[in-house]
Amino acid sequence: MAGWQNPLLDDRDVDFLLDDVFDLAALTKLAFFSDHDRETFGAFIASARRVARTSLYPAYRAMDAEPPRLVDGRIIVHPRMHEVWAQLRGLGVIAAPRRAEVGGQQLPLSVYTLASVYLMAANLSAYGYAGLTQGAAHLIEAFGSSELRERYMTRMYSGEWTGTMALTEPQAGSSLSDVATIAVPAGDGSYRLRGNKIFISGGDHDLAENVVHMTLARIEGAPAGIKGVSLFCVPRRRVEGGALVDNDVATAGMIHKIGWRGLPSLALSYGERGDCHGWLVGEPHRGIAYMFQMMNEARIMVGLNGVATAAVAYQESLEYARTRPQGRPMGARDVAQPQVPIIEHADVRRMLLRQKTIVEGALALLVRTSLYADHARHGDDRARVMLDLLTPVAKSFPAERGFEANALAVQVHGGYGYSSEYPVEAWLRDQKLNSIHEGTTGIQALDLLGRRALAPNALATFRDEVARTAARAREAGIAGGDAVVAACDLLVVAASPQHLAHATDYLDAFSTVAIAWQWLELAAAAAERAARTGETGFTRGKRAACAYWLATELPRVAHLIDLVRSDETSFTALAPDDL
Amino acid sequence: MAGWQNPLLDDRDVDFLLDDVFDLAALTKLAFFSDHDRETFGAFIASARRVARTSLYPAYRAMDAEPPRLVDGRIIVHPRMHEVWAQLRGLGVIAAPRRAEVGGQQLPLSVYTLASVYLMAANLSAYGYAGLTQGAAHLIEAFGSSELRERYMTRMYSGEWTGTMALTEPQAGSSLSDVATIAVPAGDGSYRLRGNKIFISGGDHDLAENVVHMTLARIEGAPAGIKGVSLFCVPRRRVEGGALVDNDVATAGMIHKIGWRGLPSLALSYGERGDCHGWLVGEPHRGIAYMFQMMNEARIMVGLNGVATAAVAYQESLEYARTRPQGRPMGARDVAQPQVPIIEHADVRRMLLRQKTIVEGALALLVRTSLYADHARHGDDRARVMLDLLTPVAKSFPAERGFEANALAVQVHGGYGYSSEYPVEAWLRDQKLNSIHEGTTGIQALDLLGRRALAPNALATFRDEVARTAARAREAGIAGGDAVVAACDLLVVAASPQHLAHATDYLDAFSTVAIAWQWLELAAAAAERAARTGETGFTRGKRAACAYWLATELPRVAHLIDLVRSDETSFTALAPDDL
Repeated sequence: MAGWQNPLLDDRDVDFLLDDVFDLAALTKLAFFSDHDRETFGAFIASARRVARTSLYPAYRAMDAEPPRLVDGRIIVHPRMHEVWAQLRGLGVIAAPRRAEVGGQQLPLSVYTLASVYLMAANLSAYGYAGLTQGAAHLIEAFGSSELRERYMTRMYSGEWTGTMALTEPQAGSSLSDVATIAVPAGDGSYRLRGNKIFISGGDHDLAENVVHMTLARIEGAPAGIKGVSLFCVPRRRVEGGALVDNDVATAGMIHKIGWRGLPSLALSYGERGDCHGWLVGEPHRGIAYMFQMMNEARIMVGLNGVATAAVAYQESLEYARTRPQGRPMGARDVAQPQVPIIEHADVRRMLLRQKTIVEGALALLVRTSLYADHARHGDDRARVMLDLLTPVAKSFPAERGFEANALAVQVHGGYGYSSEYPVEAWLRDQKLNSIHEGTTGIQALDLLGRRALAPNALATFRDEVARTAARAREAGIAGGDAVVAACDLLVVAASPQHLAHATDYLDAFSTVAIAWQWLELAAAAAERAARTGETGFTRGKRAACAYWLATELPRVAHLIDLVRSDETSFTALAPDDL
Repeated sequence: MAGWQNPLLDDRDVDFLLDDVFDLAALTKLAFFSDHDRETFGAFIASARRVARTSLYPAYRAMDAEPPRLVDGRIIVHPRMHEVWAQLRGLGVIAAPRRAEVGGQQLPLSVYTLASVYLMAANLSAYGYAGLTQGAAHLIEAFGSSELRERYMTRMYSGEWTGTMALTEPQAGSSLSDVATIAVPAGDGSYRLRGNKIFISGGDHDLAENVVHMTLARIEGAPAGIKGVSLFCVPRRRVEGGALVDNDVATAGMIHKIGWRGLPSLALSYGERGDCHGWLVGEPHRGIAYMFQMMNEARIMVGLNGVATAAVAYQESLEYARTRPQGRPMGARDVAQPQVPIIEHADVRRMLLRQKTIVEGALALLVRTSLYADHARHGDDRARVMLDLLTPVAKSFPAERGFEANALAVQVHGGYGYSSEYPVEAWLRDQKLNSIHEGTTGIQALDLLGRRALAPNALATFRDEVARTAARAREAGIAGGDAVVAACDLLVVAASPQHLAHATDYLDAFSTVAIAWQWLELAAAAAERAARTGETGFTRGKRAACAYWLATELPRVAHLIDLVRSDETSFTALAPDDL
């Protein structure tokens, strides 16, 4: 592997998705994207790829080995993060998908997905500073007053300041109705906040002179529960008399995370001195509603984090398997012959193909979901239905199966994979967070089966979209489309809130079908390309991966749906003490 | 969780296996165990449990945080390991299952399993020094000359010296036919060794004055391949003129492992000065055959490592779920009510029950496999057949599904599970090694489908044993036995070397059936106990777990067997460049 550098993703796959699979250039027919063309899409992706390979990835190991330090109440990040941050700002990555009038490039989310996946694969933590800032600024853009937009949003989109999402409290993790941070009106249009937040990623650092916390809090006297929670803009330093002064948001502690080690996760204490100023964003008591409107985007980003982390590990294990000699083929044990690369062994090939199906299937799902988001944003109701339905799947599948893929990448490395001198173990650690933050997998499952799958037309539209892909596949000579459409029917019959105890099984079944759908589309596009320009290893590999997923995973759906529909109550009927 | 200490395992389960499920006291009818009774079995287990809880477990976090250091060519272990080692020696743990005449306690392996699982759960690395020494000494006992036995074995069984297995070389991991270390006869009955070993656990330390490496090497001029590999006893320091002198085995490096961090894994260099003396164990060129005779035992021990690591994490997440308030029950969202412990949520209950089925099912399988080993050692051929068949399953199931269980334990902890301030993440790291060392899961699968499942009478005996359990279950009023027996028939029809490319799927299917079998037995024993002394949470929990495994996992077997028997060739037909 001397001289080899991990490419993060296979560039051929990115072009294939852009052109053959989804034809993203067609988006330029929409007025909002009409200043773009295929070339500007490609140029942005190429720039992100370059920054990812030359700046973010080379800093990854060092940032993983030496996490930020808490010194005299302030967080000092790894020195290399400073140069990385300059590169990310230069790329305009924070505002890239936003409107030109707020400093953005008006890029489609689907194109942004294909660019940012390189950055995430290179260095999840480094990208995290940008991703979080993007989300926080977008909240202000969408719901904040013009004053807040001017003061904060612009500086955040440019990367001069950064942002966080400050939702979680020690006593209220997944249960946002229990948020207890208090905001008292100060009489001057601002509020004074008091409370504690935890797991605040990027909550402090020395990359920028200010951090803006989009904070959930309860206005004094507000109703209990979800409907009494408001959204506030709470900077670490506030502008006063033309200068930045301390705003009484203190770092109470740093969490020692097992991954994402370049991005600090903090406990924050608001208003210890009674001097923490916050500004209401939008209407009182609508904080949760605002957050929910940003949730699809945030969850898609977490899904993409999962894809990226599995992708870079897949590339690493693929190269290792191609170059590491060990053993000889079955039935050819002549030790006078040299050993063969381990990719020649069936089980290693299986572990690689399994990673490939997860990584490339999930990347296609993420691009597709972002593409629905692009159309939904521009008035396509059918796309909105699909976006809402697919979001929990796009968020959780890469986290759950990506973790399996990351474990397989370690396994392919054998004993070396267990050593921190090889990078694969670090990606396994990074990946684990994605099933936890931004709504655990269990919560995604409840959201899917309890709400999104029951929305009017949702599953019928889904089946219809899958059938469309099946028709394309049939046309291209790819078999198996009927079985995928039939599996959609199973998802319909099981979609009932009475089965919520088995929501996770339903999510598993749904995800398996959703990825089968992607593989049909990928195989169809590969067959079309082969028909045009001849069969290659690339097109053959896509068809083999499709066949593998349909043969290996799709049959699990019937079993899972049986389970969802059964009266199997072994765990719900158990008393806590029976365990 | 204040004041709570992780119990490592539920003591009730250990007694249940000992008495109700397997009636291990019946072993005392065998002459070899006739000095024992139920009380001496219980006393040994109780001692191990005490040492585990009072010595090994309290040292675990510190040993994980501060791994051994390589200082001036020598390994310095964590200071706490010295007191732990004294406790382990005091317990007589290294020789406990060996004959009295070599210093042992003649304990059945099945009883030893129920004792050592506490030690492993408490501190895998700490037990590792003892487990490895046990294996190394056993090799000398079985195959060494009386001189070697006297000089090395006795000191190793007492823990005065420790031992290692020195098989792996940088260019020969899973491929032992490529071992290249050379042994040249010195003319005085000893050999001079020269070569490099890697991943040698416990290869040096400051716990004892000597380490004895059971080393695979090739006598100069030996045939190529497996049949030219011999076994040598190579101490770090050799006795010369009544004193211990350096034997030219140098520590070339220490591997930075992601888990098992209390036990150093070393690269060793033999004979850099041409002065590394080794003594042949047994006959020339029979090294691999000797190792293979010890392999079942070594693999069962790795399986038990896996069970233990999943068990302690299950206990931790169970306590966390019982005590962490978060959210409210479905349909009762009144925020004026206090939050409920997360164990009340269906999906958390599912994650716990899933862990329970994996941990307790696997522990039963390990005890059963050890029980077959006890009978096999005393002439029971049927037990020998079962031992050989079950070993790859007992080795790999806890590693693979134990890793899943460990990930679920992290997931139950939410964001806190991702922090190294909570212990669950450490067990996830520890667990990952078990699918790699002592034969990867892929190699276990080939061994099962390519050899062990094809041995005369193997599968018929297996089916027969399962049917026996099914009869017990039927008698006790437990349903599902017929389905488990039917699944055995599927294992029979698929057992052919032509399906080797799908060996891992076959192993998965076999493991699923083997655990279903254990759950039938556990549920039957629980029902019997309930009939005698009344239903309790304990007996109810066992039946619920059985029902869960049979409903959730057993149906996967038919699908996996279809896959094994199909002509599905997506990954074997792929060229390496198609990936």
